Amino acid sequence: MARREWTLEQLTGGVREGDRRALARAISLVENGDPLAYPLVRELYPETGRAAVVGVTGPPGVGKSSLIGALVEHVRASGRSVGVVSVDPSSPFSRGALLGDRIRLSDHFLDPGVYIRSMGTRGHLGGLAETTLQAVLLLDASGKDVIFVETVGAGQSEVEVTGIADTVLLVLMPGSGDSVQALKAGIMEIPDVIAVNKMDHPAAKTMLNEVRSIVGLAEPEQRPPIVLTEAMRGENVDELLAALEEHRAGLAADGRLEERRRRNLAREVFAVASSRAKSHLEAAVADDPELRRLLEAVERRELDPLTAVREIMEKVFKVRADDADAR
Amino acid sequence: MARREWTLEQLTGGVREGDRRALARAISLVENGDPLAYPLVRELYPETGRAAVVGVTGPPGVGKSSLIGALVEHVRASGRSVGVVSVDPSSPFSRGALLGDRIRLSDHFLDPGVYIRSMGTRGHLGGLAETTLQAVLLLDASGKDVIFVETVGAGQSEVEVTGIADTVLLVLMPGSGDSVQALKAGIMEIPDVIAVNKMDHPAAKTMLNEVRSIVGLAEPEQRPPIVLTEAMRGENVDELLAALEEHRAGLAADGRLEERRRRNLAREVFAVASSRAKSHLEAAVADDPELRRLLEAVERRELDPLTAVREIMEKVFKVRADDADAR
Repeated sequence: MARREWTLEQLTGGVREGDRRALARAISLVENGDPLAYPLVRELYPETGRAAVVGVTGPPGVGKSSLIGALVEHVRASGRSVGVVSVDPSSPFSRGALLGDRIRLSDHFLDPGVYIRSMGTRGHLGGLAETTLQAVLLLDASGKDVIFVETVGAGQSEVEVTGIADTVLLVLMPGSGDSVQALKAGIMEIPDVIAVNKMDHPAAKTMLNEVRSIVGLAEPEQRPPIVLTEAMRGENVDELLAALEEHRAGLAADGRLEERRRRNLAREVFAVASSRAKSHLEAAVADDPELRRLLEAVERRELDPLTAVREIMEKVFKVRADDADAR
Repeated sequence: MARREWTLEQLTGGVREGDRRALARAISLVENGDPLAYPLVRELYPETGRAAVVGVTGPPGVGKSSLIGALVEHVRASGRSVGVVSVDPSSPFSRGALLGDRIRLSDHFLDPGVYIRSMGTRGHLGGLAETTLQAVLLLDASGKDVIFVETVGAGQSEVEVTGIADTVLLVLMPGSGDSVQALKAGIMEIPDVIAVNKMDHPAAKTMLNEVRSIVGLAEPEQRPPIVLTEAMRGENVDELLAALEEHRAGLAADGRLEERRRRNLAREVFAVASSRAKSHLEAAVADDPELRRLLEAVERRELDPLTAVREIMEKVFKVRADDADAR
């Protein structure tokens, strides 16, 4: 099938108008690291910042995708448009397999007011942080009112991705013992809103109480609302959406939204830059026999790892070891 | 209390002889990013590579520390010396609080054949990857036969740290539902050995069967042994130690141990270098009003994030954007 070639003007115009094919093409360019992606996002950037961005995180299997599907339905019912970006390789969005009870999600694929996209985890210069940020900016520029970013994990690695969000929703289910322990131990940051999904499960109330007692230790204004949901039947999804909207409205009311967005953007810039720095280092070592020899000397225990790091940094980034150590 | 000043010679000599105070001082230097740490590890590096390094990972609360305590007892009973490095902020090793049933751990603090150290997570140029690597190398050079590295997490972030290990042990317990889901979804890498701790729990057998069925899908030679343990009573700890030793012996028998160590060392060098690159970037932006203005323009939506990243990379690392994008 011949692929239509887009010019930069057609793409920026198309994304601005919310054209579905233009958006799809634009996000593909971002994902493939195409040179056209950069001027495209640069041009559209001043028009971003209007969408409400919700990061949805949690361990695999808790029903994040189904919950997003149900939330999308509610947002659509209120007449607003929605974008979904999934960076969870275990998500049904990613697998494209929309089986049985997930019909709801595939319905959305046909709704022109909804754009769903799963980001590949394939190697990219600026990593997932960069492609996700760019995709969210494109959806924002296309006029989507609400954007959900789905990420997997109960640790630190998803921080870069939820760092784009105005509101972070953590989804748990009965049996999410590790996440509860991580919250308790302070290993996982307290999110803005918590959903305990699969509320029909006999252990749901126990889980609710456990989570409630943990977040109860936080300062009153930092205690996230906890909502019991059943994504499959759409139960309490309206309540969850209300909690998400209330969180954002609270931030907006006293200027904290702007402050959070500033912090998020700065953090994103550092995340993308260090991801690029890492790719650049790896590529430099792969290309340069002299740098590869350094690694081999480390492997033979002739040269210590830190000396190798210093020499690689000096050669690739022109960063002198003394400068670096002095920091 | 006046602190004894060590010369480089005294430190290298002391670490070589396994002197406890020299080792403590050396690891503190590493942790504080003291300039003396670098020549110290450099000089000792050729003498490393003898210890068996076991990475112990798993979500908080599963009993990793107690299990390590019990394993240390067994290793000591066989006459070998042990080092423990904990990079888990929720670990009792870190809190220094060795309560009730953890007497076993505090006993080890008095045993001259055991050195236990918890690494602070405070900011350091090369991050936790660097300090942990250097601490493990120092313990190795001091002649410790077995080194346990305790890390928390059920995700990707601990990879850098367990990247030092010859053998990775994942500890779970009944209720570790998120970890089981993460293994199932392929989000978490299959470790070399799995312990299901708290075997007295009524759900322990169910957990064992679940984990068994997941790892049963892997190739026969990649299926990790699973051991039910009860760290508090020391039950099946001998069996677990045997599984850990068998794994390493299997690697050593056919040359895979050397291959794995080579890969680990290369990965560590990249992890430390990119962590240093990130610190360097952040420090450069903090120091340079011009770079800070770039960030502010991003926050005002006047300059897109990727242009800011390019300009920062160019200014700090002399990496031209075209070079970087062309990769």
